[in-house]
Amino acid sequence: MSRRNDPIEALIELMARLPGLGPRSARRAVLHLIAKRAQLLQPLAELMTEVAASARECLNCGNVGTGDICNICADERRANGLLCVVEDVGDLWAMERSGTFRGRYHVLGGTLSALDQVGPEELRIPQLVTRIETEAVTEVILALNATVDGQTTAHYIADQLAGRVALSSLAQGVPIGGELDYLDDGTIIAALNARRRI
Amino acid sequence: MSRRNDPIEALIELMARLPGLGPRSARRAVLHLIAKRAQLLQPLAELMTEVAASARECLNCGNVGTGDICNICADERRANGLLCVVEDVGDLWAMERSGTFRGRYHVLGGTLSALDQVGPEELRIPQLVTRIETEAVTEVILALNATVDGQTTAHYIADQLAGRVALSSLAQGVPIGGELDYLDDGTIIAALNARRRI
Repeated sequence: MSRRNDPIEALIELMARLPGLGPRSARRAVLHLIAKRAQLLQPLAELMTEVAASARECLNCGNVGTGDICNICADERRANGLLCVVEDVGDLWAMERSGTFRGRYHVLGGTLSALDQVGPEELRIPQLVTRIETEAVTEVILALNATVDGQTTAHYIADQLAGRVALSSLAQGVPIGGELDYLDDGTIIAALNARRRI
Repeated sequence: MSRRNDPIEALIELMARLPGLGPRSARRAVLHLIAKRAQLLQPLAELMTEVAASARECLNCGNVGTGDICNICADERRANGLLCVVEDVGDLWAMERSGTFRGRYHVLGGTLSALDQVGPEELRIPQLVTRIETEAVTEVILALNATVDGQTTAHYIADQLAGRVALSSLAQGVPIGGELDYLDDGTIIAALNARRRI
């Protein structure tokens, strides 16, 4: 293209680096932003500046927020003895959207991986052990992804905490709305093994 | 969610309004932005601020740029008598990416539509007629989309300019890499009617 060093061109290139956007959709998005300068581009620029300046990891749980301690950790009503361990902030947000869990979280920031040299120290696991004492946790819910890495990490944490606190993990089975014909074998086996009497 | 009035929450809502992004991908994008604050979020905020302040429509052709007159209209080497009429700025960018057209453009800003009350005045058609005189245009290339609205608009413009300037439109036919089996009837008919002796 003939318009290098152009802020519009540079904006398209940066937008194309966002997950879910490629060069073509980045161009469409930038044209849309320019067409809606006052309603969208200007407020977006201001919010991004604000978030870039204020967003940080909660020192306690690893959630993303705008203070040193996130809203959930700051909320005394959520100190109900339940602590939900998740892999990353996206998982925490998914739990919050479900609106059913009223305790606190602990974000590991990933899963254990010998290959990528991710050990317990990198995963906020020592802080988890400390919080069980300092926050009088009665039950730790391991809400890790049902992947090999997630389950390996869950096993490691369960070993570390065994005997110190009640441990549970999310139920595995048929998702709501799921059709058996489309489920993988592993899910069907798990759902059958964990079958409930009615 | 429990975090209303939160800039992160507000940023997700605005990002979800971009074409190509929904609520889920907006959340993923914002988490990615926060994780890459220095490399991505900060520069993106600065570029958006810059583009919001500087982006404007070229007074001459309707292209989007950072000055009153866009780079293409300001480039004397592109005053070669050829004027390419396109529906919108995205089409102009697509023509520029092909790198083959060295004349100037005229962006209509849409197509004629009785239903949506879009008349010639809304479409920068009077300016097109003026430019043919003032810029000594010898040929107008109608590069409108091969849709009903696009072709209706092309016919109207051709009527307006008939006898005043040479007129042409993009060739219709089999796209490069196209397979006959996957083409619609209209394209095959057009390609057959416009067949070339070899």
